Amino acid sequence: MSDKRTATGFIGLGLMGEPMSLKLCAAGYPLTVWNRTRKKTATAIEAGAILAESPAEVAKASDIIFLCLTDTEAVEDVLFGRHGITNGGSGKIVVDHSTISPKAAIEFAARLRDHHDIRFIDAPVTGGVPGAIKGNLTVFAGGESSDIEAVRPAISHLAGKLLHIGANGAGQTTKLCNQVMVMTTFVTMAEMLKLAENSGVDSTQIPEILAEGFANSQVLQLFGQRMARRDPELTGRLTIAQKDLDLIRAAGRETGTPLPMCGTATEVVRLAIARGLGDRDVSQFIRLYD
Amino acid sequence: MSDKRTATGFIGLGLMGEPMSLKLCAAGYPLTVWNRTRKKTATAIEAGAILAESPAEVAKASDIIFLCLTDTEAVEDVLFGRHGITNGGSGKIVVDHSTISPKAAIEFAARLRDHHDIRFIDAPVTGGVPGAIKGNLTVFAGGESSDIEAVRPAISHLAGKLLHIGANGAGQTTKLCNQVMVMTTFVTMAEMLKLAENSGVDSTQIPEILAEGFANSQVLQLFGQRMARRDPELTGRLTIAQKDLDLIRAAGRETGTPLPMCGTATEVVRLAIARGLGDRDVSQFIRLYD
Repeated sequence: MSDKRTATGFIGLGLMGEPMSLKLCAAGYPLTVWNRTRKKTATAIEAGAILAESPAEVAKASDIIFLCLTDTEAVEDVLFGRHGITNGGSGKIVVDHSTISPKAAIEFAARLRDHHDIRFIDAPVTGGVPGAIKGNLTVFAGGESSDIEAVRPAISHLAGKLLHIGANGAGQTTKLCNQVMVMTTFVTMAEMLKLAENSGVDSTQIPEILAEGFANSQVLQLFGQRMARRDPELTGRLTIAQKDLDLIRAAGRETGTPLPMCGTATEVVRLAIARGLGDRDVSQFIRLYD
Repeated sequence: MSDKRTATGFIGLGLMGEPMSLKLCAAGYPLTVWNRTRKKTATAIEAGAILAESPAEVAKASDIIFLCLTDTEAVEDVLFGRHGITNGGSGKIVVDHSTISPKAAIEFAARLRDHHDIRFIDAPVTGGVPGAIKGNLTVFAGGESSDIEAVRPAISHLAGKLLHIGANGAGQTTKLCNQVMVMTTFVTMAEMLKLAENSGVDSTQIPEILAEGFANSQVLQLFGQRMARRDPELTGRLTIAQKDLDLIRAAGRETGTPLPMCGTATEVVRLAIARGLGDRDVSQFIRLYD
C-alpha cells in the first residue's frame, strides 16, 4: 500500500479535514469522501474526489480511511454505526486524525482488530488550519509499527512529521499533553495581561518584552498581542478549548492523575462560556476579566 | 555619572549579586560592597571591592547603589533601617535589582524622593545565575528616563538589555508578569508529564516531541527533561517559586485582578513544600505527584 495508487478515503471535511483531503487528491491518490453535512464535500469533489453515501461506502472503496472528526462520539458512530466503516469490509487501516479520548482510542482499536479485522492508528495532529493548508502538520501516532509504515507515504503529503509515540492511545495521550500546555498557557496569559493593565503597564508590549526570557512560549508569541488587543478575528472557538480541557480531565480521571491547573483552567473557561464568550476566538477569553 | 569613574556600591552579594558585582569591578568601576552575611563579600573584595560596615557607608562612598536582595522587607531595611542608605547622604541613585512588590517599589521611590533626595529605579532582572555570570541579564526598569539613562553605562556591564518599561513599579510589574508565566508553566508541566507517565507514555520524550508545536515554551525545553528525569541538581529552590507566587497574588489583591491559575499554582506549590520539597530544585516539584 505504499504507492500512489492506494485507494484512500476521507471522512470529516471540516476546517482541518478539507485541506488535508485536498493534499491527497493533489498527490494523485484515488479518494472517496463522506461528510455528515454533504455540502462540505464540494471542494474535495471539485478536486477529483468521489462522494460516498456513507462511511461504509467509503470503506468499501478504500484501503486507508482517514478520519478528522469533532469528538469521540462522532468517531464511534462513523466506525461502528449502522452505516459505519465496519460495514464496509475488512483488511483496511483506519487513521484517526481526530482528537479523542486515549481510552476510547484503545477500545476502538481492540474492537476493530478483534471483531472486524481492521487496523486502527490514533493519529491526532498539531499545526492547526495553517499547517493543514501547507501540508506540514505534525502527527502523534499510536499503533503498530507495520501499520504506521504502511500509511507513512500517504501521510507524508499531509504532515511534515509523523511521530510514532507508542501503542494505540499513545498518540492521543501526547496530543492531550500538548493541549494541557497550550490551553493552560492561554488561560494564564489572560490573567497575566490583565494584571499588567491593572498595574498601569501597557499589556500590548508584554509579549515582546518577555520574548527572550524564561517566560517565552509559542502561545505568548502567536496569541499574546492578539489577546492584549482583544482582536476579534476567529481562529478557534473557545468551545473547542473547553472540549479539549474536558477530554484532558477525563484522561486524568481514568488514569488517577491529579490535574489541579487543568481543573482551574477548565472551570474558568466554562465560566467564560457561561458569560457568552463560547463562540468567540480563544484570544477573546481575556474579556472574562474586563 | 556616565564614565567609568562613577563610584558604585553593591548591596546583596548572593547567587545573583556576587557575579553582578564582579562585572562592575572588571569594568573598572570603584565599588563598595555590603552584605548581611559578611563572608559572602570575599570574592568581590578579592576582585578589588571595598568592604563597608553598613548600607549607610556604602551610600556615603557611592553615586549609584545597586541592590540585589531577597524580598521587600530586606530592601526596606537596607533603605530605611537604622544604618540604611538614607543615612548615607543625598543625590544618589538606587537601582534595585531585587524582585519585590510593585506597590512597595512605588512607595519606596516616593519616600526616597520626597524625604531624602534620592532617586530610585526598580530594576528586577531575568536570566538567572547563568545570565548574571555572562553579564547578559535582561533588566525591566521602572523610573524616570533621566535616571535610567544615568545608570545605563554601568548596567550595560551586567545586562544585555535594559528595558525602560514605565514609571516606578512598572519594572516590578513586568517581572511579576514574567514570573506568572514561568511559575504556572512549571506547575502545569509536572501534571502534564505525570499524565503521560500514568498513560504509559515515556515522559522524557515529551519535551522534544512537543518542541515544534504550539505547546512549546522555554520552561518546557530548559526544564522539561530534568523534571521528567527527577534530576536532583539544584538550580533554584521551590521556596523561591513560592515567594514569587505570593508576590504575584499580593499584586492581584492590590490591583483587584482575579488570578485563578496563579492561585491554584500557589496552593499546590505550598502543598509540595508542606510535603518536604521546599529545599529541592523547582524541577523536583513533580515528586508531589509520585
